[in-house]
Amino acid sequence: MSETSEDSGAPAPGSRRPGGRTARTRTAVRDAVLTGLTEHGYPALTVEYVAEHSGVHKTTLYRRWGGVEGMVADALDLAGEDAWTPPDTGSLAGDLRALAREVVEGFSDPAHAAAPTAFVGAAFQSPRAADALRSFYAERFRRCEEVVTRAMDRGEAPAATDAGAVVRAVSAPLFLRLFVTREPVDESVADQAADAALAAVNAGVFGRRTERPGQASAPGAAVGTSAAGS
Amino acid sequence: MSETSEDSGAPAPGSRRPGGRTARTRTAVRDAVLTGLTEHGYPALTVEYVAEHSGVHKTTLYRRWGGVEGMVADALDLAGEDAWTPPDTGSLAGDLRALAREVVEGFSDPAHAAAPTAFVGAAFQSPRAADALRSFYAERFRRCEEVVTRAMDRGEAPAATDAGAVVRAVSAPLFLRLFVTREPVDESVADQAADAALAAVNAGVFGRRTERPGQASAPGAAVGTSAAGS
Repeated sequence: MSETSEDSGAPAPGSRRPGGRTARTRTAVRDAVLTGLTEHGYPALTVEYVAEHSGVHKTTLYRRWGGVEGMVADALDLAGEDAWTPPDTGSLAGDLRALAREVVEGFSDPAHAAAPTAFVGAAFQSPRAADALRSFYAERFRRCEEVVTRAMDRGEAPAATDAGAVVRAVSAPLFLRLFVTREPVDESVADQAADAALAAVNAGVFGRRTERPGQASAPGAAVGTSAAGS
Repeated sequence: MSETSEDSGAPAPGSRRPGGRTARTRTAVRDAVLTGLTEHGYPALTVEYVAEHSGVHKTTLYRRWGGVEGMVADALDLAGEDAWTPPDTGSLAGDLRALAREVVEGFSDPAHAAAPTAFVGAAFQSPRAADALRSFYAERFRRCEEVVTRAMDRGEAPAATDAGAVVRAVSAPLFLRLFVTREPVDESVADQAADAALAAVNAGVFGRRTERPGQASAPGAAVGTSAAGS
């Protein structure tokens, strides 16, 4: 997760964040991108649309973001700059359920769900949006890992638990239903996802792989063990 | 999963499947849709493109499929008509790993991965593609449930295990990485997903919910317990 202004292809030597004119322009563009994405989808999003809805001139948009792909990627980068931290309920079981329920709550409100859904959809069309989405989730899951590292500190989880894999396991059944199988999710599915991940933690399934009994040892690096890992 | 010809809006009174001219037309259109989706994506797919690449006249395409959405949905319906059955290795642990590895293998070949990825992407743009995708995965997971019901018959899994939730749990961490976080998957991630689901089965997490100890009982129906359930 490097400096976002670099990812968006902006030269931005004079970007005075937060609060300057450049920051205001960036949020205006972000808002227009979100409106366009959620109302019309990525394929219908144009520089003209963003110019009209942000009040920022087309030449500025082209100069600073290069085009639609850059603006979508930057909107995602901006979304990743929030101060969100994972829940801290005092137990791993509680934290994992709280994480899963946050996902369900976030997507039960269509107005709330529209933007993240549009970003996931845009990534199928735009390589730059896909890169930005990957960065966004890498950072988001990195923050989530804290609930697992705290649990390890408390002795609630095996010492070498792969925190990145655990927090992905909690969200995965929800994201599967939201974005792939398009089935409804509710608190019951959230709790089940959290409890399943917890059971796997307790069974030692998320131990960082060096060697594992049974079955041929898998080739290649362990993906769940992200480079940004704790 | 009803008769596909109905879903595609086709009157098809004279459709002589398999092998007739109508079936050949349908496969030619499906092939053109797949080529278009994988090479240009859903937003660029047009009736003109399909006509050109399938050799089927535009008026026939409009009459039989209504338009691009109908053709994409029908291509998905056709994909769901294969004879695929889940692996049968003799144990639940083996079957779940084999299921997960099939997903990873399928997506490690870019040529193989292109069509399913394009379908998942198209569902973000087209409500009819989304419906067809939902049907496709409902049927696919329904077939997968067999590995869990066999395990219950062998006494390897608790009698009231929610088979639909288990098989979704196996695929979910892989689909999360493939379609949302866009991280790589490999056999090691596949095995971990399978082993995590197995641990949760053994811990009774996938017991069909009536009442569950601790935590407030979740409102609403259990989503994992699909209507098509075993």
